[in-house]
Amino acid sequence: MKVRFSARDGAWDEWAPALRAALPEMTLSRDGDPAGFDAIIYAPGGDITDFTPYRNARLIQSLWAGVERIVGNATLTQPLARMVDPGLQRGMAEYCTGWAMRAHLGMDRYAQDGIWRNGQVPPLADARPVTVLGMGALGQAVASMLTAIGFPVTGVSASGRAVPGVSVLPVAALDQALARAQILICLLPDTPDTQGLLDARRLALLPQGAWLINPGRGTLIDDAALLEALDRGRPAHAVLDVFRAEPLPADHAFWSHPAVTVTPHIAAETRPETAAPVVAQNLRRVMAGQPALYLVDRQRGY
Amino acid sequence: MKVRFSARDGAWDEWAPALRAALPEMTLSRDGDPAGFDAIIYAPGGDITDFTPYRNARLIQSLWAGVERIVGNATLTQPLARMVDPGLQRGMAEYCTGWAMRAHLGMDRYAQDGIWRNGQVPPLADARPVTVLGMGALGQAVASMLTAIGFPVTGVSASGRAVPGVSVLPVAALDQALARAQILICLLPDTPDTQGLLDARRLALLPQGAWLINPGRGTLIDDAALLEALDRGRPAHAVLDVFRAEPLPADHAFWSHPAVTVTPHIAAETRPETAAPVVAQNLRRVMAGQPALYLVDRQRGY
Repeated sequence: MKVRFSARDGAWDEWAPALRAALPEMTLSRDGDPAGFDAIIYAPGGDITDFTPYRNARLIQSLWAGVERIVGNATLTQPLARMVDPGLQRGMAEYCTGWAMRAHLGMDRYAQDGIWRNGQVPPLADARPVTVLGMGALGQAVASMLTAIGFPVTGVSASGRAVPGVSVLPVAALDQALARAQILICLLPDTPDTQGLLDARRLALLPQGAWLINPGRGTLIDDAALLEALDRGRPAHAVLDVFRAEPLPADHAFWSHPAVTVTPHIAAETRPETAAPVVAQNLRRVMAGQPALYLVDRQRGY
Repeated sequence: MKVRFSARDGAWDEWAPALRAALPEMTLSRDGDPAGFDAIIYAPGGDITDFTPYRNARLIQSLWAGVERIVGNATLTQPLARMVDPGLQRGMAEYCTGWAMRAHLGMDRYAQDGIWRNGQVPPLADARPVTVLGMGALGQAVASMLTAIGFPVTGVSASGRAVPGVSVLPVAALDQALARAQILICLLPDTPDTQGLLDARRLALLPQGAWLINPGRGTLIDDAALLEALDRGRPAHAVLDVFRAEPLPADHAFWSHPAVTVTPHIAAETRPETAAPVVAQNLRRVMAGQPALYLVDRQRGY
C-alpha cells in the first residue's frame, strides 16, 4: 500500500513514527507519482491543493476532525474521511469538563488578596444545567463526562438522535436550549448553517451569569456581538479556544476583554499515538474493499 | 422527640426549616431544661460546652464531618455521630475534580497577554496519576469522580480496605503514594496521627510539577515546610481550603506566595437540604432503639 502524506511543515516528524508503527505494510512518502498512491493522509497546510492527479487514491484520510478547509475543494472527488480519534474525544471532554468546573465552582471569585470570601456556596452540579451544541462524537464524549459528574446536560443536534443520559433537542429548539444554558459548550462544525449562528439575538437568550465555552469552530460566533453581549454581562464569561483568524492577532479585543479567556486552539489536539491506529484501520478497510469509516457528507459539509 | 440545637449564630436560620421539614415529629429548640432533651444537633460555635446536664440525650449528631472540636470534650459521654451528607460528598468531589482539572489542563499557563502559547498539549487524564490521602466517605466520592474522568487514582487509607477502581495502599506505603502523585488530594481527618504528617521530608517526595490540594484539615500540613517546598518548586502549586487558623489571617504568607491558591473553607460545605434527611434518619433510629449510624470512635478520633 502506497500512501501520500500532506500536512504543514513539522507534522511529518510528529506523525510518521506513529503511522509507520500502526501500519507497517504501508509505504508512506511525502512525494512521488500522484497516480501511484492508494490513499492520502491529509491535514491543511501541506503541498497538495489539486487532488485531480491522485486518480487511484481510494481515500483521503483527514488528520483533523474539522474538514472545512478541504471539503469545498472542487478537485476533490475521492472519498474523504474525518478524523475520529478516541484521544481527541477524551482530550476535548477533559478540556470542556475542566472549564465547566471552573465556571461551576466560581473559581474566579477568589483572589490572593487576604479577603476570606466564604458564604457563597455554589449549587451542586445537578442544579447547574449545561447545554452542548453539537452531538457528534465530540459532543457526545463531552456530554458523557459532564453527566458522570452530575450536570444535567441538554444536547442540540441536527439529527435530534437520542443520546443516553442527555436531553437532546433538535436545532429548531435552539432558542430553548440557549435559555436554559448556565454553561454553554459549542461543538458545532463549520458549515454555511452554523456560521454566525451565535449572533446578538441568540446570545441575549442566555441566562444571567452564563458561561460560554467554544472549543469548536470560531466562525460559529459573531465576534462583535459577543463582545457587546459580554459588556452587558450576558454571557458573564467566554472561554474561547478557536477563532476566525489563528493565531488570534495580538491586538484583538478578545485578548483584553476582562470577561474573556483565550486558549490557543488546544482543546481538540489530535494525538498521533491514539489517532494513528484509527488511520490504519480505515486504510486497511478501503484496501480490503470495505467502505471507509467517518466519511464526510459533502452536502452537509462534515 | 425533643431536640436541642447548638451551633454558631446564624446556623439556626439556615438549618431549622430543613430540619423541621425532614423531622416533623421533633420539637427543636435552642434552650430549655437539659435533662428534657432526647438528642442534640451540634456544630462548633454554639453555647453548649458542658454535655453533662444532657443526661438523657441518646445521640449528639454533628452537623460537621470533622469532629475534632468536640471529640476531645471530657464532658461528652453520649454517643457522637459524624455528618455523612451525600451533598457534602458530592460537593467535595466537585471541588477536588475542578481543581484537579485546573492542574491537569495547565490552565494557569495561559494569560490574557496576546501570546499564543500552543504546542504544549497536556497528557490525557489516564497518564496523570492522582493520589488521594484518606479513603473515607469523602475520599471515596472524590476518587470515584476522578476515576470516571480517567485519572489513575491511588488511595491511602488507615484500613487499607479495597475501593472499586482505586489502587488502595496502607499508610505504611505513604511514601510510595506521594512519590507517584502528580496531583495530591488530602482528605485525612485531624487526629494525633495526621497532625503535621506532610512535613519537609514527605513533601520532598512529590514528583516535579506536582500540585497539592488540601480540602481536608489544615493541621495535616507543616505550613513552614510547605512554603519552603513551594519555594523550591516541589510541589509546583498548592490549593489550600483549610488552615490552622480560620479565617486565614490577612498577613499569612499563604496569601502572598505566587504558588498558593487560598479558598475560604468552601470545599466541604454541608447543605441543609441534603443533610437534614440524614439527621432525621439517625435521630429516628436512636429513638427506635437502633444503633446510630456514623458513630465516632473516640480512640481513633473520627
